[in-house]
Amino acid sequence: MAWASGEGVRCADVRRFGMADPGDVSALRRAIDAGEVDPATIVAVIGKTHGNGLVNDYTRGYLRQSLALLIAERTGRTPEDVVARVPFIFSGGVEGVLSPHYAVFTVAQATAGGPAPSLAVGVAGTPDLEPQDVGRARQIASTADAVRRAMHGAGLAPEDVHLVQVKGPAFGAAEILAAAQAGREPASLHPGTLMAFGRAASALGVASALGEVDAEADLERAVLSDRTVYSRRASVSAGSEIRNVEVVVLGLGAAWRGPLTIGHRGLADALDLAPVMELAAELGLEPAPQVPAAQAARIRAVLVKCEPQRDGMIRGRPHTMLNDGDIDAQRHVRGAVGAIVASVLNDTALFVSGGAEHQGPDGGGLLAVIAERQASPLHGHGFGSAGA
Amino acid sequence: MAWASGEGVRCADVRRFGMADPGDVSALRRAIDAGEVDPATIVAVIGKTHGNGLVNDYTRGYLRQSLALLIAERTGRTPEDVVARVPFIFSGGVEGVLSPHYAVFTVAQATAGGPAPSLAVGVAGTPDLEPQDVGRARQIASTADAVRRAMHGAGLAPEDVHLVQVKGPAFGAAEILAAAQAGREPASLHPGTLMAFGRAASALGVASALGEVDAEADLERAVLSDRTVYSRRASVSAGSEIRNVEVVVLGLGAAWRGPLTIGHRGLADALDLAPVMELAAELGLEPAPQVPAAQAARIRAVLVKCEPQRDGMIRGRPHTMLNDGDIDAQRHVRGAVGAIVASVLNDTALFVSGGAEHQGPDGGGLLAVIAERQASPLHGHGFGSAGA
Amino acid sequence: MAWASGEGVRCADVRRFGMADPGDVSALRRAIDAGEVDPATIVAVIGKTHGNGLVNDYTRGYLRQSLALLIAERTGRTPEDVVARVPFIFSGGVEGVLSPHYAVFTVAQATAGGPAPSLAVGVAGTPDLEPQDVGRARQIASTADAVRRAMHGAGLAPEDVHLVQVKGPAFGAAEILAAAQAGREPASLHPGTLMAFGRAASALGVASALGEVDAEADLERAVLSDRTVYSRRASVSAGSEIRNVEVVVLGLGAAWRGPLTIGHRGLADALDLAPVMELAAELGLEPAPQVPAAQAARIRAVLVKCEPQRDGMIRGRPHTMLNDGDIDAQRHVRGAVGAIVASVLNDTALFVSGGAEHQGPDGGGLLAVIAERQASPLHGHGFGSAGA
Amino acid sequence: MAWASGEGVRCADVRRFGMADPGDVSALRRAIDAGEVDPATIVAVIGKTHGNGLVNDYTRGYLRQSLALLIAERTGRTPEDVVARVPFIFSGGVEGVLSPHYAVFTVAQATAGGPAPSLAVGVAGTPDLEPQDVGRARQIASTADAVRRAMHGAGLAPEDVHLVQVKGPAFGAAEILAAAQAGREPASLHPGTLMAFGRAASALGVASALGEVDAEADLERAVLSDRTVYSRRASVSAGSEIRNVEVVVLGLGAAWRGPLTIGHRGLADALDLAPVMELAAELGLEPAPQVPAAQAARIRAVLVKCEPQRDGMIRGRPHTMLNDGDIDAQRHVRGAVGAIVASVLNDTALFVSGGAEHQGPDGGGLLAVIAERQASPLHGHGFGSAGA
Repeated sequence: MAWASGEGVRCADVRRFGMADPGDVSALRRAIDAGEVDPATIVAVIGKTHGNGLVNDYTRGYLRQSLALLIAERTGRTPEDVVARVPFIFSGGVEGVLSPHYAVFTVAQATAGGPAPSLAVGVAGTPDLEPQDVGRARQIASTADAVRRAMHGAGLAPEDVHLVQVKGPAFGAAEILAAAQAGREPASLHPGTLMAFGRAASALGVASALGEVDAEADLERAVLSDRTVYSRRASVSAGSEIRNVEVVVLGLGAAWRGPLTIGHRGLADALDLAPVMELAAELGLEPAPQVPAAQAARIRAVLVKCEPQRDGMIRGRPHTMLNDGDIDAQRHVRGAVGAIVASVLNDTALFVSGGAEHQGPDGGGLLAVIAERQASPLHGHGFGSAGA
Repeated sequence: MAWASGEGVRCADVRRFGMADPGDVSALRRAIDAGEVDPATIVAVIGKTHGNGLVNDYTRGYLRQSLALLIAERTGRTPEDVVARVPFIFSGGVEGVLSPHYAVFTVAQATAGGPAPSLAVGVAGTPDLEPQDVGRARQIASTADAVRRAMHGAGLAPEDVHLVQVKGPAFGAAEILAAAQAGREPASLHPGTLMAFGRAASALGVASALGEVDAEADLERAVLSDRTVYSRRASVSAGSEIRNVEVVVLGLGAAWRGPLTIGHRGLADALDLAPVMELAAELGLEPAPQVPAAQAARIRAVLVKCEPQRDGMIRGRPHTMLNDGDIDAQRHVRGAVGAIVASVLNDTALFVSGGAEHQGPDGGGLLAVIAERQASPLHGHGFGSAGA
Repeated sequence: MAWASGEGVRCADVRRFGMADPGDVSALRRAIDAGEVDPATIVAVIGKTHGNGLVNDYTRGYLRQSLALLIAERTGRTPEDVVARVPFIFSGGVEGVLSPHYAVFTVAQATAGGPAPSLAVGVAGTPDLEPQDVGRARQIASTADAVRRAMHGAGLAPEDVHLVQVKGPAFGAAEILAAAQAGREPASLHPGTLMAFGRAASALGVASALGEVDAEADLERAVLSDRTVYSRRASVSAGSEIRNVEVVVLGLGAAWRGPLTIGHRGLADALDLAPVMELAAELGLEPAPQVPAAQAARIRAVLVKCEPQRDGMIRGRPHTMLNDGDIDAQRHVRGAVGAIVASVLNDTALFVSGGAEHQGPDGGGLLAVIAERQASPLHGHGFGSAGA
Repeated sequence: MAWASGEGVRCADVRRFGMADPGDVSALRRAIDAGEVDPATIVAVIGKTHGNGLVNDYTRGYLRQSLALLIAERTGRTPEDVVARVPFIFSGGVEGVLSPHYAVFTVAQATAGGPAPSLAVGVAGTPDLEPQDVGRARQIASTADAVRRAMHGAGLAPEDVHLVQVKGPAFGAAEILAAAQAGREPASLHPGTLMAFGRAASALGVASALGEVDAEADLERAVLSDRTVYSRRASVSAGSEIRNVEVVVLGLGAAWRGPLTIGHRGLADALDLAPVMELAAELGLEPAPQVPAAQAARIRAVLVKCEPQRDGMIRGRPHTMLNDGDIDAQRHVRGAVGAIVASVLNDTALFVSGGAEHQGPDGGGLLAVIAERQASPLHGHGFGSAGA
């Protein structure tokens, strides 16, 4: 994580690339080879892959391996070194209209003046966690510490932050049971439930670092228990391809220059249409009701968090997401909220992640959009297509 | 089908009821017992059940049996007689934010004056079909004939029709193979593909009856082959709980009085947000961008058709619905389009049906909304809740 | 439950019937109308339906409604009365080679002499449970009490019992959360996990009634925690279509006459082939290695319990059942163990139920077979086919 | 494909390795580094991965990439060269008790005398196919040609062959539609159905090369149409990670020396238990009824083909596999037949592949087992475990 706070004026860029499958990194390869992306400046990749987004989703690891190989090859580093330096935050599940893609975040020294504040990016990671750490004080504290380091690295104060994207570890049934049998009791023996504990704890860690919760609160006790305690700017996912917690802090920094800005809104529930429109309007995207294609081309990344309301209701009527044994509730809600956001933004390459425990109120969520301030002739629509 | 065209001025009403499970018809029972619904006037029920909406979805048959028993008990008829007289058109799959429900359509002699035209309802059915009829000329012609009879019964001309809701038969693998082995070759041996053939043929039957296609066209040849031939007002589903084709024609009739009106719009693709807003505005529901709850209470039924675009693309980017071996493509698209419509209308009790072959352009769909002209103190929100 | 212990010598019979769908009870209807089954003597029905066997499986309720209507019609009782008197124990999920069916248990006064002991059947039920009772002492004690009453009614001592088939309630996410929010904290907020708690508690109730566990043990504390405490003769499932616990005790009773016998074996794990062969041989079914069709025709019912080994291993290699987000682990294991038993017995109409918590050792299960002592010219193969 | 027929006496070896996920090739890495496997001698890898085995299964490609990287690194070749030389035949779907693994086939000059004939391995590939070739004469002929070349390379006559394992290409919906719209009409527009066409055509190609069918027969016409035409020694799968057809011919060759032998049996249907026992006995594995662990340690690879009977029946009763919209029929049947074979062989690391079109009679399948002739102190159980 090379970009310490004292290094002068920086510029962040974000470009999304499509992929035919999780092994297809041809679009980024072409962009690198065309000089459009300097691989040495890549600080994070956030993406949405083809899998189910649950414990047995191996598409996240496949894309991670594929990108690490490409970036290693083009930078002269080893894949292991690339993985250690660059957070790869992938969420599986492109339900409904969603499109598989990855967004590449780069940070370079600013080469030209420009308006400030601009998009700022900070990254950091925690040490590895074990099953018994998930959902507990250790995960909360280490996540909070990573967020603070990422903010410091980016020169951001808590109030400058628009979104903290977090990826934490997930464990399979066998590892969980092994920990329990060794006397290191995990918070749950159920792999999916333990994933929820992990998302919850990291979200509370973000809330702590951003000062959104009382510094004296017993946050471990609140995990999956007191839903009134939450962050309004955390988006957390989990996956078995990593062992530690990786954080990417996104905000507007006074010491950053560049063409990109970011905004965010909380979503009160899965049908909360108005904030989507408001955020689009705030970014000058002219939703009427849909952002026209010419304006949508300015969008560089969209990050959404959502979850099913736990009482099984929405707007006074029952939903069935939580009782479905065939399709996981998170797949249902990603498809629904993703479609609503896509229909307004006229963009389907959205990062939509389910499981919003302590990331907004019960059943609610979060939306952040990174966009060019105005149409940039240089970068075009910033979306590379897959395949040959 | 008691309501022939000569019987004077009629009034159609529509009320939706929720259900805890497909055996729970307590909400309609209470409405009947409270005198709010006269069971003798029920002419059709259209609903969305908990199942997967595919060949092995038995929730449609379960609700059908449960409603037939209730209506039979309260009208003194046999369940068999009820099923023979009343089309029960159910689509399984309440993906995402959708809520299980059924809409009860009643027709009575108009007891008071009121504005004309008002919501008009006509119903008819075809003889039973066999596997080899599905997707073929016999299904096209018999569906067209049923639509004509339903229009005639309701006193509607083709141009008065806003939506023709159709339910046709589906067959399991064993029945299909048995027909093939007896020399009665079905259009496909794959149960799901044969369902698609059936939806396609009935849609072309509707198009024929409504005069939407050239009367001389070889429609059998167009089935699943020439996607430029389609109806703009057909919504067809299929299920193994029936053997014939049942049609419900909905329109605005000059000889009908009552509080309800209907409107419809075509959807160009799964992200076509503007027509949803336009239709809401046309019905006075004030979307800004979401219909406020007070206005949404006037909505009596919402019927949506949709399907994944067959080239695997949407707005220039790939979707993955058609290649998914875990979640059927129709489940994906119902969850997505249903959420978009729900977010505008502020209503989740939507009938959303996938499989829009020849029901609009490739990847497109249809939206029809039935609503009160103004808030009705008598009927309230017209939605009965389930359970005790 | 009419058959108290003092009523003299009784005869139990069991016949299985296939079904095209959960609403198809035509095979039993024909058997009743042909005088082969006296509907007044039906004391229990145990069956395997088309659904997923999880919380949102409505095929169990559909078959229950369909059978209750038929039996009510043919006995002059109301459906409510039938449901109150006759346990309907259905498990969803006919994975792999399994075939949907239901086994009808009848008890009549013995009309002829015959060998003793013969198959004996006892039934009983508990009061309704609420979410907070599931997995707790109340479920354990009330299940144990019901088992004792069922044994008493059948004149069976604990050592005469071969299998106690139990069905308990399941609750959806909304009901569970409502209980929690009212201060009646359930053992888990996750519907599937709470089902597991319920199976575990009822299994320990059976173990208590059969004297398989120390009478002084703190069984509530053992629930899902101490897997060394278990019953060797309990098979428990759960479903949202009932609110209480229903038990069917099957054994060999000295006061019973009739053509049927029963045997059982424990299964050490999901690959435990030898006990299946041994039990078949014990019943004279001549597995070599497969029971020939002529002998298989003597089989009247097969009841299997199984579950995935919780450490994710089987015979030293990993299985993946517990980490699968697309197919529930119970569906995996039912398909596997069901196929093994079917391949030996040459019979696919097996009741195979997953979730064997405290029903044998971790990863193990149970097999019980009811069969004619010798080929019976009167009863033929005892399997009625579905449809017309 | 380096091993032409004239190169003298060869020795084939097979070792299986487990994996924690499709990116985990640590077990092979350790075996290479320990000198147990010479990476330069690897001629084929056949494995079973964690995915669903359907069109959107990316675990096959992930393992392929991971193995190619490892072998390339350890041999000094490029990954592209490895992939071009070594067939990687992976089938997704470890349903039920099955365990993810890959079997590495090596061929070396025989270093010691030994009994003949011994296991012989031949490999070959076809040129790339396009969607319109799948299921057509071009696929049949090119597969037959590849099989002939592989037999020639291994010095095998058709009667020496026990199994031809084939992997062909699969295409997604978008590619299929693009071909159709360009006038190159594929055999089906449905990705899953086109996979079936491809398996069928390659199976008929094998049948042609092995002389199992009339040389004059119109095999293209028989594809998915005349099920009486089939190979008894073909096992074909398909996946989107390759574009051509790759074949691995396994047999007993007079010019081969080594510790391994192979046998095979046809399976009449999914419950055909006796041939499994017979083959185990033929190989000296002593099934009674289960192969004891000490003998099971001699098993080096097990390859199974199976499919659901198309009339929806098995042994006179209905199965539900073909109508299931939640779990694909091939997943059902793999879990069932895999469990039966595993229960006899006491081995869960089976390659079980569904979709046996023209690979045996309708509903039937194939079983081949490679085993050591006697316990080999050198090779131990030939199964390397995953992880560190």
